[in-house]
Amino acid sequence: MPTILGQNQYGKAENRVVKITRDGTGGTHHIKDLNVSVALSGDMDDVHYSGSNASVLPTDTTKNTVYAFAKEYGIESAEQFGIHLARHFVTSQEPIHQARIRIEEYAWERIGTDKSQHSFVRKGQETRVAQITFDGEKWQVISGLRDLTVLNSTDSEFWGYVKDKYTTLQEAYDRILATEVSAKWRYNWSSEAEPMPDWDESYEQAKTHMLQAFAETYSLSLQQTMYQMGARVIDSRGEIDEIRFSLPNKHHFLVDLEPFGLKNDVADGAVYFAADRPYGLIEATVLRDGAEPRIPVDLTNL
Amino acid sequence: MPTILGQNQYGKAENRVVKITRDGTGGTHHIKDLNVSVALSGDMDDVHYSGSNASVLPTDTTKNTVYAFAKEYGIESAEQFGIHLARHFVTSQEPIHQARIRIEEYAWERIGTDKSQHSFVRKGQETRVAQITFDGEKWQVISGLRDLTVLNSTDSEFWGYVKDKYTTLQEAYDRILATEVSAKWRYNWSSEAEPMPDWDESYEQAKTHMLQAFAETYSLSLQQTMYQMGARVIDSRGEIDEIRFSLPNKHHFLVDLEPFGLKNDVADGAVYFAADRPYGLIEATVLRDGAEPRIPVDLTNL
Amino acid sequence: MPTILGQNQYGKAENRVVKITRDGTGGTHHIKDLNVSVALSGDMDDVHYSGSNASVLPTDTTKNTVYAFAKEYGIESAEQFGIHLARHFVTSQEPIHQARIRIEEYAWERIGTDKSQHSFVRKGQETRVAQITFDGEKWQVISGLRDLTVLNSTDSEFWGYVKDKYTTLQEAYDRILATEVSAKWRYNWSSEAEPMPDWDESYEQAKTHMLQAFAETYSLSLQQTMYQMGARVIDSRGEIDEIRFSLPNKHHFLVDLEPFGLKNDVADGAVYFAADRPYGLIEATVLRDGAEPRIPVDLTNL
Amino acid sequence: MPTILGQNQYGKAENRVVKITRDGTGGTHHIKDLNVSVALSGDMDDVHYSGSNASVLPTDTTKNTVYAFAKEYGIESAEQFGIHLARHFVTSQEPIHQARIRIEEYAWERIGTDKSQHSFVRKGQETRVAQITFDGEKWQVISGLRDLTVLNSTDSEFWGYVKDKYTTLQEAYDRILATEVSAKWRYNWSSEAEPMPDWDESYEQAKTHMLQAFAETYSLSLQQTMYQMGARVIDSRGEIDEIRFSLPNKHHFLVDLEPFGLKNDVADGAVYFAADRPYGLIEATVLRDGAEPRIPVDLTNL
Repeated sequence: MPTILGQNQYGKAENRVVKITRDGTGGTHHIKDLNVSVALSGDMDDVHYSGSNASVLPTDTTKNTVYAFAKEYGIESAEQFGIHLARHFVTSQEPIHQARIRIEEYAWERIGTDKSQHSFVRKGQETRVAQITFDGEKWQVISGLRDLTVLNSTDSEFWGYVKDKYTTLQEAYDRILATEVSAKWRYNWSSEAEPMPDWDESYEQAKTHMLQAFAETYSLSLQQTMYQMGARVIDSRGEIDEIRFSLPNKHHFLVDLEPFGLKNDVADGAVYFAADRPYGLIEATVLRDGAEPRIPVDLTNL
Repeated sequence: MPTILGQNQYGKAENRVVKITRDGTGGTHHIKDLNVSVALSGDMDDVHYSGSNASVLPTDTTKNTVYAFAKEYGIESAEQFGIHLARHFVTSQEPIHQARIRIEEYAWERIGTDKSQHSFVRKGQETRVAQITFDGEKWQVISGLRDLTVLNSTDSEFWGYVKDKYTTLQEAYDRILATEVSAKWRYNWSSEAEPMPDWDESYEQAKTHMLQAFAETYSLSLQQTMYQMGARVIDSRGEIDEIRFSLPNKHHFLVDLEPFGLKNDVADGAVYFAADRPYGLIEATVLRDGAEPRIPVDLTNL
Repeated sequence: MPTILGQNQYGKAENRVVKITRDGTGGTHHIKDLNVSVALSGDMDDVHYSGSNASVLPTDTTKNTVYAFAKEYGIESAEQFGIHLARHFVTSQEPIHQARIRIEEYAWERIGTDKSQHSFVRKGQETRVAQITFDGEKWQVISGLRDLTVLNSTDSEFWGYVKDKYTTLQEAYDRILATEVSAKWRYNWSSEAEPMPDWDESYEQAKTHMLQAFAETYSLSLQQTMYQMGARVIDSRGEIDEIRFSLPNKHHFLVDLEPFGLKNDVADGAVYFAADRPYGLIEATVLRDGAEPRIPVDLTNL
Repeated sequence: MPTILGQNQYGKAENRVVKITRDGTGGTHHIKDLNVSVALSGDMDDVHYSGSNASVLPTDTTKNTVYAFAKEYGIESAEQFGIHLARHFVTSQEPIHQARIRIEEYAWERIGTDKSQHSFVRKGQETRVAQITFDGEKWQVISGLRDLTVLNSTDSEFWGYVKDKYTTLQEAYDRILATEVSAKWRYNWSSEAEPMPDWDESYEQAKTHMLQAFAETYSLSLQQTMYQMGARVIDSRGEIDEIRFSLPNKHHFLVDLEPFGLKNDVADGAVYFAADRPYGLIEATVLRDGAEPRIPVDLTNL
């Protein structure tokens, strides 16, 4: 047989689960809003070669498990919930050797009113993401975010670059720097024998460090700003060994208003055209010295 | 000729304009981020029948005007900016009898850091919208928002409805009520002789009233909640005569966990499946008694 | 009470229904793939004012009806299916005075193979749309399409336009003309006493006429081309009285290659930048002389 | 320094380039419509650590190069165009050690009319994709497609699977099998010393083989169908060593019409609910025995 099966995985993707919890008296409610995707792999040759499903736990069952576990275990954090699920699939089904759980989490905030502790408005800013992988022995947790759009209206320059025969770009000494942050970071936690990070605290801190590094870096290139964002996370959070960014350079071009007798000076407050495509795309991994890079290059590079 | 031209309009759509202003010393920056669409109409028979462009101001010129006006007049509010543009097109070009400016506005908040007053993060919640129409004599301003997702985790029932041979729905006495608010409201301001509303204040107040009415209404149907949201705005804001909603009922179905030996009681914190399609779609106009409804039914009903 | 209820409607939106039929022996299959949205209106004051659902047929029931009717009546065409549904809601429920059914249809073609008459690939070109409205006496049927992207690589000019102080556009004598056609046309059929159009034949013919008019018109403006597209439909199809277009001008800008020592002549085959935003947006109604325009301006003008 | 830079790359993404060519007399036009993304890597430590751009060819220059090369070399195929670009970046700039070019191609067909050989309509079915990577010595070409939606209305079963305590799924003996094909295949061509495949012919053949295998496989699981699709490509096309699929199981659920007194038998033509989320997601690599798998798992697994 000249053709063989390589890496494969299957499961139910995008299970939208919402969990409400009520405090003691029931007056104050809390909400968790997730999108959970399950991918299982193991001894699955038969189903590919012959169509025998004897080793296949249906994707429908993986969906049911997501909903049942939300009731049985609750949803403490996206990462903790994924750990419960991954452990279950690998330990309960012999043919399944590895489980990978991907989760998106949508944040809500309370509607400010005295009369209701059960009313929420979708925050709508970034989407929190997590990927939990378990092979029966080792854990890998990658967390992150996407769709977090940030902008500095000054303190960004770009000059001193290579000029070849196709270069027409003018150097810039005071430009807008804007990007939509997609970041994924890997925790060094890999065994239940080790103390588990506080996933929510870690997430909030990583986000804050990235935002502050973005705001406080006087930028000579988006690469430099990106590295500072990553270094700040690695330096500040011992539980994180590696972070990978995919940062589109959301170009804001100074509009030429001279044909209309207007000066468009930045010192005075300028007018910009916010462009869609094309865009610069800047990607890198930043990691703790000595750590092995394990976040796949294509995971953030969609 | 058996065929004739009816209503027509043209212009440049989706001009993405960002305006930065700097305070006195230049340290503190402010940002306005708009998407501006221009639609002009008037004596435009020739261009349709023969292709003569003698009365056509190019759409490219309308784009240039948007950017030039952002510099010349600044962007005080979306509505005020649209008023400058509409007035200009109608009064400066004889063949143009009416201008309609549609604007989307994206909100930013500051990144909290001592070292930077020029760093922003996209708020990412609702999109603010405005439509300004001017025919040389009368103004019409419709403002609104979309993509504002809200959820009550209790205090919602649905029962006592009509049951025909196709009805299988079970009555609900404690359900989640969630929707993604799309609302458009019309100001009664119609002439520059009248005092102009404070557009930003009006927007913030209308949004707050809708959110609070959503949170505080014990709901027997989404229609009832919607009406309360509208009535609260009309009752509280004298400058607004009419509001129209398009509210998808974002269904959250209680998951049946009995096959797994689990009770999914709401009193105890329940697990829901957040469904995509189909969805209930509830739409209505709420207006001040005596006011004429002028918001087109299809404007919110996409 | 200073606030009152205006126009309102409700129903289940985006019911995704697929109907398979099998020929006599069962070997050859046919597929219909629709997205059906129901909007009902009538005596609905109570549910808005008090939350009483005594006159409310649940949106869930309207969904069930869509699926049941696909079995009971089959899906001959989107329009015919919508007519069955609209008639049912208005005639079977006293409080419901008007039904509006909106349908999207996705086309499939057969996978060319001798061994299978039950395999299909999504055509993926335009989306067919239909809106059927019934108030118990009169019918209105509007059909159309969207997402049909067309391009002429020559025979398009644009010059002789108005030039004001904000005009910088250069005249063009050989440009690309491209647009994504959104068109809605209204049939003059309004009563079951009249013979019903052949909806599928009518759709195919209207589409063909638009495409051919687009291809064969030497264009001095997109407005002129649009008018020709509409006139060709009205002139050729007696059952159609009115058509409305919303045509984004998908700009293809000739790239300036002179800095690289290259001429980018159109005669010789040119290179273009296909832009996203902003875009010209050209909209108009074309109608049979004497016919009353009834397609809402905002229906195609999203 | 505890933190270091790992893998990194940069370039201009989503350059939308359209190339028109005219036959001898100029009457017949041809169109190529691409979306080209450039990613470069090499000696880029300085720009990340210090912001020095001395080794950085601007992303704007990579954009200019795309447009200039479309004129200089023409666009024979997406793959050939990517090869020109990748070779240029790696051989002309010393700090650049590797170039990866990703291309999406949109297909057009002619509008059938005697009077025009320059009019086109977007085909709108699948998107063709290609990724060309060059490190100065070896080439890697991965081609593929996405968004190709296919459906078999019979000859699909699913039974005999594992049943655990969370399993409620009923076995199916005649179901719809539908998916949206995303496939990427790797060519074994890796050096300009070897004869280059005919990229367009190869693409068309790979697509045809996948469609026919989908149509002709009596399916006991989507995994089995997927494997047959891959094996058919590998067996038939000697130039392709490896293919990876990501196939969402687009569930079409038989609607329960019994509450309405209707039987929904498949033999007789059935009615289905086409669901959105969640969906099964089935992914695998199929490869020539002895070939090394090199398509990243996350490349198709977005």
